[in-house]
Amino acid sequence: MTPMATDRAAPDLPAVPAERSSLQLFTPAGVLLRAAPLKLAAKRLKALGFEVQIDASALAKQQRFAGDDDTRLAALHRVAQAAPSVALATRGGYGLTRLLDRIDWPLLARSVERGTRWVGHSDLTALQMGLLAHTGATSWAGPLACDDFGRSDADGGVDDITAPCFVEAMNGELEAVGFRTDAGFDGLETQGTLWGANLTVLLSLLGTPHWPKVSGGILMLEDVNEHPYRVERMLLQLQQAGVLDAQRAVVLGDFSGWRKSPLDRGYDLKAMVACIRSVTRTPVLTGLPFGHVPTKVTLPLGREVELVVQGRDALIAWGH
Amino acid sequence: MTPMATDRAAPDLPAVPAERSSLQLFTPAGVLLRAAPLKLAAKRLKALGFEVQIDASALAKQQRFAGDDDTRLAALHRVAQAAPSVALATRGGYGLTRLLDRIDWPLLARSVERGTRWVGHSDLTALQMGLLAHTGATSWAGPLACDDFGRSDADGGVDDITAPCFVEAMNGELEAVGFRTDAGFDGLETQGTLWGANLTVLLSLLGTPHWPKVSGGILMLEDVNEHPYRVERMLLQLQQAGVLDAQRAVVLGDFSGWRKSPLDRGYDLKAMVACIRSVTRTPVLTGLPFGHVPTKVTLPLGREVELVVQGRDALIAWGH
Repeated sequence: MTPMATDRAAPDLPAVPAERSSLQLFTPAGVLLRAAPLKLAAKRLKALGFEVQIDASALAKQQRFAGDDDTRLAALHRVAQAAPSVALATRGGYGLTRLLDRIDWPLLARSVERGTRWVGHSDLTALQMGLLAHTGATSWAGPLACDDFGRSDADGGVDDITAPCFVEAMNGELEAVGFRTDAGFDGLETQGTLWGANLTVLLSLLGTPHWPKVSGGILMLEDVNEHPYRVERMLLQLQQAGVLDAQRAVVLGDFSGWRKSPLDRGYDLKAMVACIRSVTRTPVLTGLPFGHVPTKVTLPLGREVELVVQGRDALIAWGH
Repeated sequence: MTPMATDRAAPDLPAVPAERSSLQLFTPAGVLLRAAPLKLAAKRLKALGFEVQIDASALAKQQRFAGDDDTRLAALHRVAQAAPSVALATRGGYGLTRLLDRIDWPLLARSVERGTRWVGHSDLTALQMGLLAHTGATSWAGPLACDDFGRSDADGGVDDITAPCFVEAMNGELEAVGFRTDAGFDGLETQGTLWGANLTVLLSLLGTPHWPKVSGGILMLEDVNEHPYRVERMLLQLQQAGVLDAQRAVVLGDFSGWRKSPLDRGYDLKAMVACIRSVTRTPVLTGLPFGHVPTKVTLPLGREVELVVQGRDALIAWGH
């Protein structure tokens, strides 16, 4: 499937697999204030064909965290030991940074070997890139249970691209996602390790043992509530650190939620992208349907992918 | 002088030096929307005894920047070549990151050898720490002309600690600043290179050639508009990168302008400091009068300083 398919009203809903996939919901970072979105997400994920279990401390609360550090670390390790088909975080927020030095990375990597697909975005980028740095294991940039499956119908419900794309990816049927990018990249064909996701969280790993030293990669990036000048500063840091020039391509998703300032005087996301393109030799594409927005694809982080552009149609493909 | 002196109404105003110090105002980063604060700052700095000059492009405008990159870079180099006694930035904002790879660091270091004191904070941290990284030259964490000397009397005017502390530091008369810190550090005596200042801007240098690799230092930090969880994430990054444990002390200034969230549930600056203290063996003091607040001391970055605590009275001293 391609998320930019024209017939959005009737997406190809995948068949439910013969054997229902086990899916565990866990909360490794920010607190869930209410149980209702979690229950709604669990119900909808069951309807999509998953055997859903909710981790024992998914609703734990300690200040702004889903339980204290020990509680959240134990939840992570418990899910890894159970090795469900899908380990889907309920939400992001902030909290994984506190755990990075204590996570049993080989335990998480063994769960991946046993078939677990760890899924999420935002703060989960710390877990996913740490896992890549320490073990090379693949995880999945994709939805968060409460954000993407726990939204009430009044608030827009479940996105009709996000859900089937996630289900296909979890069933191993998804081999590529397509999107419209901007002009100027017709004929681009390259490949490399797909990595990145949330820019702020990714940057918070730079200089630490949890930073994945990927070169020749396809770097995907998104962020929320960050003014374009802050996005630019982070991307320039990656350039000055030698990271951007070392990639085959940078693919930008959504940068949402920021507010204009009277100081901007015309400076915006477009000006930011122009600045970055002026300093790196690496192609910087835009348009990836990924970020803190309802429509998001599910993509394999840490996996070798191909990036192909024809006209303004871009495809990220990983096959089998 | 100590900024926490009890007689705040009548600070010791330093004598104007026999030969008036030259002071150049320049705008290396964000645009100045209005000329009035600059004119007011210049007038007040003259009254404080400085021979004030305003750089030719101090009021240049290009989007959110004080002129395009070439214009701001030329201004920096022009000030360095003139080598005034004081090179005081008019404001911060964002913009120095774009220039870091192109700054003539030896030229700036030669101006320091000729006696120039480069002063500022916020975005200026990028310039000051880049200068330290590339040349080891000293600069001064202190006021910004428009923020600190360009505020109308209706908005509070000039702070009665910031101004005399700045003048004494520029005249070479200031040898120490004192402040009240929190309990638990009585008897602490240590020394090292003073460095840091704005946390976000400092972190934007990590992993790049512009990062000063200071160990055994006294790391001072402040920030504005950053929620404590974001401050915590940055400090944990410094810890995980081996930076905090390698310092003799961390001294926190003001962390102002952030907004509480319903998610916090009691998490605040105090909880953040407790978290950082639990992971690093380095003493983490609070209370330094420095940051995006009216009252700020002027301190020599890159210089060997002593940090001494008696009871809750802390002193940062550099002597001569």
